[in-house]
Amino acid sequence: MRVNSLKPFPYEPGAPAPLRLRVKKEIRFGECDPMGVVWHGNYAQYFEEAREVFSRACGLGFDVLQRAGVVFPVKTLFFDYCKPLRYGREYIVEIVAHWSEAMRVNAEYFIFDQQEELCTRGFSVQLLVDVQGRLVLDAPPFYQEFKDNWAKGNFSGFQNTQRIF
Amino acid sequence: MRVNSLKPFPYEPGAPAPLRLRVKKEIRFGECDPMGVVWHGNYAQYFEEAREVFSRACGLGFDVLQRAGVVFPVKTLFFDYCKPLRYGREYIVEIVAHWSEAMRVNAEYFIFDQQEELCTRGFSVQLLVDVQGRLVLDAPPFYQEFKDNWAKGNFSGFQNTQRIF
Amino acid sequence: MRVNSLKPFPYEPGAPAPLRLRVKKEIRFGECDPMGVVWHGNYAQYFEEAREVFSRACGLGFDVLQRAGVVFPVKTLFFDYCKPLRYGREYIVEIVAHWSEAMRVNAEYFIFDQQEELCTRGFSVQLLVDVQGRLVLDAPPFYQEFKDNWAKGNFSGFQNTQRIF
Amino acid sequence: MRVNSLKPFPYEPGAPAPLRLRVKKEIRFGECDPMGVVWHGNYAQYFEEAREVFSRACGLGFDVLQRAGVVFPVKTLFFDYCKPLRYGREYIVEIVAHWSEAMRVNAEYFIFDQQEELCTRGFSVQLLVDVQGRLVLDAPPFYQEFKDNWAKGNFSGFQNTQRIF
Repeated sequence: MRVNSLKPFPYEPGAPAPLRLRVKKEIRFGECDPMGVVWHGNYAQYFEEAREVFSRACGLGFDVLQRAGVVFPVKTLFFDYCKPLRYGREYIVEIVAHWSEAMRVNAEYFIFDQQEELCTRGFSVQLLVDVQGRLVLDAPPFYQEFKDNWAKGNFSGFQNTQRIF
Repeated sequence: MRVNSLKPFPYEPGAPAPLRLRVKKEIRFGECDPMGVVWHGNYAQYFEEAREVFSRACGLGFDVLQRAGVVFPVKTLFFDYCKPLRYGREYIVEIVAHWSEAMRVNAEYFIFDQQEELCTRGFSVQLLVDVQGRLVLDAPPFYQEFKDNWAKGNFSGFQNTQRIF
Repeated sequence: MRVNSLKPFPYEPGAPAPLRLRVKKEIRFGECDPMGVVWHGNYAQYFEEAREVFSRACGLGFDVLQRAGVVFPVKTLFFDYCKPLRYGREYIVEIVAHWSEAMRVNAEYFIFDQQEELCTRGFSVQLLVDVQGRLVLDAPPFYQEFKDNWAKGNFSGFQNTQRIF
Repeated sequence: MRVNSLKPFPYEPGAPAPLRLRVKKEIRFGECDPMGVVWHGNYAQYFEEAREVFSRACGLGFDVLQRAGVVFPVKTLFFDYCKPLRYGREYIVEIVAHWSEAMRVNAEYFIFDQQEELCTRGFSVQLLVDVQGRLVLDAPPFYQEFKDNWAKGNFSGFQNTQRIF
């Protein structure tokens, strides 16, 4: 796989616009390392938190997948660390999901500090597989609904919304 | 940054051979997720464990860096998940460090299960910075020594060694 | 130390009333174990989150302590697990701080699920020490202020408040 | 529950001697907090590692329990922090299991640094429950075997053994 990590998912003309959602959180003491900053490995949790809020908002929550007998494991994950996050502050995770014709979710992440400076960026690719770990080739109903909603612009409500919780 | 994630650090003719080291560990229960497999975010710990054994073996341990007033933060990190690791088993992390003329450590990682099947691969780039976070441009003595040793083949001892701990 | 874990800090007649604060959070996928429930070791994070919100609300934040050259490490910690928390739900952590004449914070914790059923309870004792790890015997100004405010009832505002974030 | 935390499981005359096992490990960087020491919440992992080595050595491994349709969740857990563990060192976890007539495992833990100084001590109680979470009242065959082996002194082999891995 060749990847341009600054533009991992180039926009395809005619595709529905990316979906965008922001989550604001406080850094936990136990997430920081001896340098006084968030330990680099903990950003996987930060990405996942935003992805989960996004998933539930789009009808792709864990319970929905479980009923359909499928899972959405992370296949690839990338981090580019630009500026450390110090303990005692809040951070914002912005997830940007890019349209794909395949049964995968391509997402970019941007983590900002309280001054809205970019601290970490990255991306993930998730693939839909069944419980035996085989790629799902036909879209299950819940997934078709998700894509239809996206194509029709039904998720535009949270596209520019900052959700704080 | 454009990256070929299957070959992130192409070999440059004339460069010293890559350094290779293996670490064998047991999966902790608390590292596994509701799917019964190692949670994808925990592989950052697994990579770091191998990197630390490697660093100490090469004279790049945390104490050495601290005395020199520098740190070696992770700048980029990539994971490609191929096969999940199940709880109750051991795993092997193989780190392969690639020569670079710059003051950076380019490392690939390969995680295997007990059957020596590849489960996760990835890479990291670390940059040498001072405590103010500025890039170090002149090699500190400990670092020059590390590169000299590598160039002279002094680390060949552990190149094919499996260290179990 | 002998402890009655159901009543670790018995009320002393005449002491200011305990302080009480609630924090509501969502369970992270990576915090759950192969049983599909929050891994028991992760409750230390949940307790700490409530303790940090409480500390900041009382003028005992990490930055205040750092300026005073002291820390407030956890000396003892206890957990009693009553009912597991399942992934996909929210939880509430209630912290109840009990008055002490000494320079220590005695806190109880109660974790509830969305149905307000008790899932985990426990307590912690924190002792004020200087950076060399020696017990602080004279109250620093910030700490005296904290106790004065408590004694005067100045924290009553958040005593029955549920803070959601 | 009233507990003497320094002597949580008093010896009952006539009971088989406690079982004792030691595990030696290296501290991970990501397990340390901004004070440069192991974050207090991570000791739950350290206790669990020793408990798992102990369990497997005694025929109480996760796979055995799974086949029997039971689990052994932690019911109570206590930590007393005496001296911090600094990054860059090794630590030793000693688990001491105390005989109980009931279907529970009462275990004490002692964590030492490289100088064999006591850093953290604590205990856990685990109860045998079925998958519905109900207490198991009749000993399953694997558990009866475990107790028979203990009573007969068959585990004496590892009683004074230090296992390093």
